[in-house]
Amino acid sequence: MPLVGVIMGSKSDWEYMKEAVDVLKSFGVSYEVKVVSAHRTPEFMVEYAKTARSRGIEVIIAGAGGAAHLPGMTASLTTLPVIGVPIPSKNLNGLDSLLSIVQMPYGVPVATVAIGGAKNAALLAIRILSIKYKDLEEKLNKFMEDMKNDVLSTSLQA
Amino acid sequence: MPLVGVIMGSKSDWEYMKEAVDVLKSFGVSYEVKVVSAHRTPEFMVEYAKTARSRGIEVIIAGAGGAAHLPGMTASLTTLPVIGVPIPSKNLNGLDSLLSIVQMPYGVPVATVAIGGAKNAALLAIRILSIKYKDLEEKLNKFMEDMKNDVLSTSLQA
Amino acid sequence: MPLVGVIMGSKSDWEYMKEAVDVLKSFGVSYEVKVVSAHRTPEFMVEYAKTARSRGIEVIIAGAGGAAHLPGMTASLTTLPVIGVPIPSKNLNGLDSLLSIVQMPYGVPVATVAIGGAKNAALLAIRILSIKYKDLEEKLNKFMEDMKNDVLSTSLQA
Amino acid sequence: MPLVGVIMGSKSDWEYMKEAVDVLKSFGVSYEVKVVSAHRTPEFMVEYAKTARSRGIEVIIAGAGGAAHLPGMTASLTTLPVIGVPIPSKNLNGLDSLLSIVQMPYGVPVATVAIGGAKNAALLAIRILSIKYKDLEEKLNKFMEDMKNDVLSTSLQA
Amino acid sequence: MPLVGVIMGSKSDWEYMKEAVDVLKSFGVSYEVKVVSAHRTPEFMVEYAKTARSRGIEVIIAGAGGAAHLPGMTASLTTLPVIGVPIPSKNLNGLDSLLSIVQMPYGVPVATVAIGGAKNAALLAIRILSIKYKDLEEKLNKFMEDMKNDVLSTSLQA
Amino acid sequence: MPLVGVIMGSKSDWEYMKEAVDVLKSFGVSYEVKVVSAHRTPEFMVEYAKTARSRGIEVIIAGAGGAAHLPGMTASLTTLPVIGVPIPSKNLNGLDSLLSIVQMPYGVPVATVAIGGAKNAALLAIRILSIKYKDLEEKLNKFMEDMKNDVLSTSLQA
Amino acid sequence: MPLVGVIMGSKSDWEYMKEAVDVLKSFGVSYEVKVVSAHRTPEFMVEYAKTARSRGIEVIIAGAGGAAHLPGMTASLTTLPVIGVPIPSKNLNGLDSLLSIVQMPYGVPVATVAIGGAKNAALLAIRILSIKYKDLEEKLNKFMEDMKNDVLSTSLQA
Amino acid sequence: MPLVGVIMGSKSDWEYMKEAVDVLKSFGVSYEVKVVSAHRTPEFMVEYAKTARSRGIEVIIAGAGGAAHLPGMTASLTTLPVIGVPIPSKNLNGLDSLLSIVQMPYGVPVATVAIGGAKNAALLAIRILSIKYKDLEEKLNKFMEDMKNDVLSTSLQA
Repeated sequence: MPLVGVIMGSKSDWEYMKEAVDVLKSFGVSYEVKVVSAHRTPEFMVEYAKTARSRGIEVIIAGAGGAAHLPGMTASLTTLPVIGVPIPSKNLNGLDSLLSIVQMPYGVPVATVAIGGAKNAALLAIRILSIKYKDLEEKLNKFMEDMKNDVLSTSLQA
Repeated sequence: MPLVGVIMGSKSDWEYMKEAVDVLKSFGVSYEVKVVSAHRTPEFMVEYAKTARSRGIEVIIAGAGGAAHLPGMTASLTTLPVIGVPIPSKNLNGLDSLLSIVQMPYGVPVATVAIGGAKNAALLAIRILSIKYKDLEEKLNKFMEDMKNDVLSTSLQA
Repeated sequence: MPLVGVIMGSKSDWEYMKEAVDVLKSFGVSYEVKVVSAHRTPEFMVEYAKTARSRGIEVIIAGAGGAAHLPGMTASLTTLPVIGVPIPSKNLNGLDSLLSIVQMPYGVPVATVAIGGAKNAALLAIRILSIKYKDLEEKLNKFMEDMKNDVLSTSLQA
Repeated sequence: MPLVGVIMGSKSDWEYMKEAVDVLKSFGVSYEVKVVSAHRTPEFMVEYAKTARSRGIEVIIAGAGGAAHLPGMTASLTTLPVIGVPIPSKNLNGLDSLLSIVQMPYGVPVATVAIGGAKNAALLAIRILSIKYKDLEEKLNKFMEDMKNDVLSTSLQA
Repeated sequence: MPLVGVIMGSKSDWEYMKEAVDVLKSFGVSYEVKVVSAHRTPEFMVEYAKTARSRGIEVIIAGAGGAAHLPGMTASLTTLPVIGVPIPSKNLNGLDSLLSIVQMPYGVPVATVAIGGAKNAALLAIRILSIKYKDLEEKLNKFMEDMKNDVLSTSLQA
Repeated sequence: MPLVGVIMGSKSDWEYMKEAVDVLKSFGVSYEVKVVSAHRTPEFMVEYAKTARSRGIEVIIAGAGGAAHLPGMTASLTTLPVIGVPIPSKNLNGLDSLLSIVQMPYGVPVATVAIGGAKNAALLAIRILSIKYKDLEEKLNKFMEDMKNDVLSTSLQA
Repeated sequence: MPLVGVIMGSKSDWEYMKEAVDVLKSFGVSYEVKVVSAHRTPEFMVEYAKTARSRGIEVIIAGAGGAAHLPGMTASLTTLPVIGVPIPSKNLNGLDSLLSIVQMPYGVPVATVAIGGAKNAALLAIRILSIKYKDLEEKLNKFMEDMKNDVLSTSLQA
Repeated sequence: MPLVGVIMGSKSDWEYMKEAVDVLKSFGVSYEVKVVSAHRTPEFMVEYAKTARSRGIEVIIAGAGGAAHLPGMTASLTTLPVIGVPIPSKNLNGLDSLLSIVQMPYGVPVATVAIGGAKNAALLAIRILSIKYKDLEEKLNKFMEDMKNDVLSTSLQA
C-alpha cells in the first residue's frame, strides 16, 4: 500500500515528475503514479482525492502547469497534505503555474515547491513522513550529510 | 428559467460581480447568482456545472481571485461557454487571478476578460446570446451607439 | 457561408492560428481565414468587422502579438462575440500580447484565451455556437469524453 | 490652426492629459483637445487621424490606459509622428498601458513616454516641432537652463 | 512540549503570523512563537533549527519578507518539514518574499504558501500532523465541513 | 551633412541598429552612425549630444540594453528629439532596457519604441522629419500603401 | 573633508536619502549631501563625479528613481565605489529604478541595495570604509551586536 | 594571504564566477575561491563568514541562484563588504536570484550587481580596495581609459 500518491495533470509532466519518483525510490518510500487531469478528468480527480486517505496515502504530490488547478483542487477534496509542483510552461516559464498553485485562499493550503522542483517535492514528502516513520529521519540525516560532504569536497579549477 | 449563471468563489467577490448582474438586468437578460467555491465546495461546483446546461443556462460567468480555479474547473464540467472574471487580489492585484484563469490547457477554454472586468463579462455573455436571441443584437447596437454618443458629446475644460 | 471568421494581424501568426482552423475543421464548423492587420490595413479591418455579422459570421477569432490591437478593435466594430488569441511575441513571450488583448475597458469585451491558445479559441467558438446548434453540443460531449478516456488510458513507465 | 492634437481614450484620462496641455500652453504652442475612443468611437478615430495632417496638425499626442489601442491605431491612420502616453491603470498601474502602446510591430511606430508622462509627451512634441520652428529651440534651451538652475539652487536640510 | 514552532524574521511580521497562531489554537495544537532573524541573529537561527527536532517540534512555520532567507535557512538546518510564509513587502508586495522562499535548490525544500498566507500555513501544519495524530484528521474534516456549509448558506442581495 | 544621428552603447548593438540604418537608406535620409557609450565614453557622449544640433542633426536614434542610459542621457544634453531603442538583454529580454529608457522623469523625454524596434525608430525619425521635408511625407504615404497592399495580397494555405 | 558623498536625482528623493545621512551621522562618518540630477544637470554631474576622488570622497551613495541613471553615470565618471539606491517610483514601485541601476554592463559596476534601502546604503558605505578605518569595524561589531540583542529581547503577545 | 574571497553556492555557478576570478587576476588582486552552500553547508558558511575578516579577507564576492541566500547570509555573519552576484536561474532567468539578493532588510546590506554580473563584481571589489591600495586606483584609471579607447576606435560597417 503506497504512502505517497504522485499525480500530474498531463503525460507531458512526467518528464519532470519522474524525478520525484526517483527520489522516493532512493529513500525506499512506497508510492503510486497516475495522470489525473483536473480539466480533462475532473470526476476522476474528485474520486482520487476523496479516497486517497482511506487507501493509505499519507502525502500527495501533484504537478501541473499553466493554469495549474490540480494541486489546489486535490487539496480541496482531502485533508492530507498536498505538495504542488509548478511545471515550467511554454511561454511564461512556469510563473503562471507557480501563482496558480501557491496563491490558494484561506482554508485549503498547498505546500508549493520551486518551479520544476519535483525532486524537492519528494524530499518534502519524506520530511513530512519522517515525523511518523523514524527510519526516514535517519535517511534524511544521511542525505544531508552526503550533500554537505559533496560540497566540501568540490574542487574548482581556479 | 435563467439564461446566465453568475457564480463566484467567495462572498467578497460580490462587490465586483454585482456589476455583471447590473449589466444583465439593464439588457433584460435572466440570470441566477450563487457563491460556488471551487476549494470549499468542490462537489457543489461539480453538481452546479454538470447540471447547468440541462437547467437551461446558456452562458456561465465565473469570478474568482488568487489561485482562481473556479472558471477553469467549471469549464471542465460543462460544454457551455464559461466566462472568467479575474478578481483583483490583495497582494498581486489580480495578476495571479488573471494567469490562473486564462492560461488553460488545450481542451478546456475559458473566455477571460480584464482584471475586475465583471461588466464586460456580462456584455460578452450578451454578445454570445445575441447570436441566438435577435433582440439582444438590437440592444447591443443601441448600447454601442449610446457609448459612441456619450464620447462624442464629452467636453473638456482645456 | 462561414460561421466563424478567423483573422490574424500578420502572416507569421498563421503558424499558430492554423491550429484553430484544424479544430474547427474537425468539428465540421464552417470558417473563413484572412490576414487583417489593425495597423497596416486599419480600414480593411473596419470594413471586415462591420460587415461580419451581416455576412453570416457568428463568432470572430482574432490572433495578434505584441501591441495586439486587432481583437479589441474588431470587437469595437461589431456586436459579435470576439475571441482574442495572444500570439507569443519575440522578447516578452506574449505577456504583452495577453495584456493588450485582455485588459479591455468597459463596453467592449474580448474573450481572451491563453498565450498561443489558438486551439482553445476554436473550442470556445464551438461552445458558443453550441447554444444555437445542438449538434455541436453532442460533438463537444464526445470530444470531452475522448479527452477523458485519453487521460484515463495513459500509462507511465514508473 | 493648432499644431498639436491632444487626444485621449476617455474623459477620465483628462486628469493626466491636462498636464500636457499646460506644458504646450507655457511654450505658446497651439493645440486642440478631444476625447477620441478607439473602442467606443472607432470610426471617429479613423476620421480624426486621417484628416489630422491636412488640417495642419503636425504632432499627435494620444493618451490611453489598459489595453491602450488609441496611440497605435492613430499612428496606423496617419504619417504624422504620434506620441503615446500610457495612462496608469487601476490594477496593473499602467504596465498594461505601456506594453500595449510601446510594443508596436514594424511599420507603425509610436513614440512612447513614461507611464503617466503627459508632461514629457508635450515636451517631446515641442522638441519635434523645434526642428521646424526655431523659436521653440530657444524656448527649450531656456526651459532646460531653468531646470538646471532649479536643481543647482536646491538646498537640503541635512 | 510544543509540536509546532512558529518563527518570524521580524517583530513586524507578527501582524501576519499571529493569524497562524490563532488557527493552531483553534485546533488545540501546541506551539511556540519566536522572533528568529536569519540576518540579525544567524547563530541563534542555527541553534534554533538544529535543536528543534530533539525538543519535540514536528513542524516549523517560518515567516519572512523581502530577501526572505529564514524559511530556507531553517530548512537547511533541520530534517523537519518547514513551511514558509512570504510576508507582503513594502514595495514589491511580497513577490520578492515569495520567490526568495519558494525557489529553493535541490536538497532543501520549503513548503511555501501564499503571500500573507499565515493561516494556511497553520492548516498545512495541521494536515501534516494529522498523518500521525488522528484527532486532527477529524478536526480537519469538521473544519472543511464547516467551510462548505458556510459557503452553501451564503445569500447575496442580487 | 546627416539629418539623423544613429548611436548605440556597444558594438554588439549594431546587429539590431543596422536595421534602422537600412530603413533610413531606403527612404534616402542622410545619417551618421557611431558607438557612443554612456558608461565607457561619458565625456564623448556629452560632446556628441551637445554638438549634434549645431552640426545639423535633427533627430537622434539611440539604442542601448540593460541599464540603458544612453538615450536618456543624450536627451538631457540636447533639445533635439531623441528616439530610444531598447536592445534585448541577455537575461531579462529587454524589459530592463525598456524601463531604463521609457521611464524618464519630467523635463527630459525619450521617444521610446518597442524592444528591438530599431526599424520603427527609423520610421519614427522619418515621420518627425516629414513635418519639415515634404518629400518624406509622400514616401511615407507610399510606404504605408505598400504595407497595406502586402497584407491584402497575402494568401494562407487554409 | 567628507568621506561619503550622498547625492540624489531630485529633491523629492531626500525623504528617502536622509535616512542614509542619519545612519552615517550615528557612526560618526563625515559626508556631504547634494542634489545632482543626471538629466537636469548632466554637466554638474560630470564635474561632481570626476572631482570626487581628488576632493577626498571615498564612497559615493547615489539615489534615483524611475529611469534611474545617476548611480550608473556617476560610476562611469569615477573609480570610487558607487552605491545605488533605487527610489520607489510612483507607478512601478521602484522596479524600474532597481533594474535601471543594477543591470549595468561590464566595466562599470554599481553596488545596488534594496528598493528604498537608503539606510543599508549607508551601512554598506561604512563596511567599505571599515577596511581602511579600523574604528568603523568596531562600531559595526557593536551595531550588529545591538541588532542581535534587540531581536533576542523581543517578546510577542501570543 | 588573499584579499578577496570568492564563494558560490554550487559548482555549477563556477561557469559564471570564474569570470570574476579572471578580472581579479588581471588586476593582480589576491583571492581565494570556494564552493560554500548556504543550504547544503550552512555551518561551513557560518565558519567561513565569521573568520573571513581575521584571515585577512577584505571583500567577499558571493554568487548564488534561485532562492539565493548565500550573499545575504554571509553579510549577516561578517562586517566586511559583501558583493552579491545573482546567477541566472533556469526558469526565471535570475529575476528570483536578483530579488533574493538585493532586497535585504535594514541592518545587513549586500552590494548587488547585475544578473550574471560576475566580472563587475570583481571590478566593484577592486574599486572598494582602491580606497586603501593606491596602485589599484591607477590600474582602474588605466582600465577605464582602455575601455574608452576601445569604444572610440570601434568602426561599424554602415
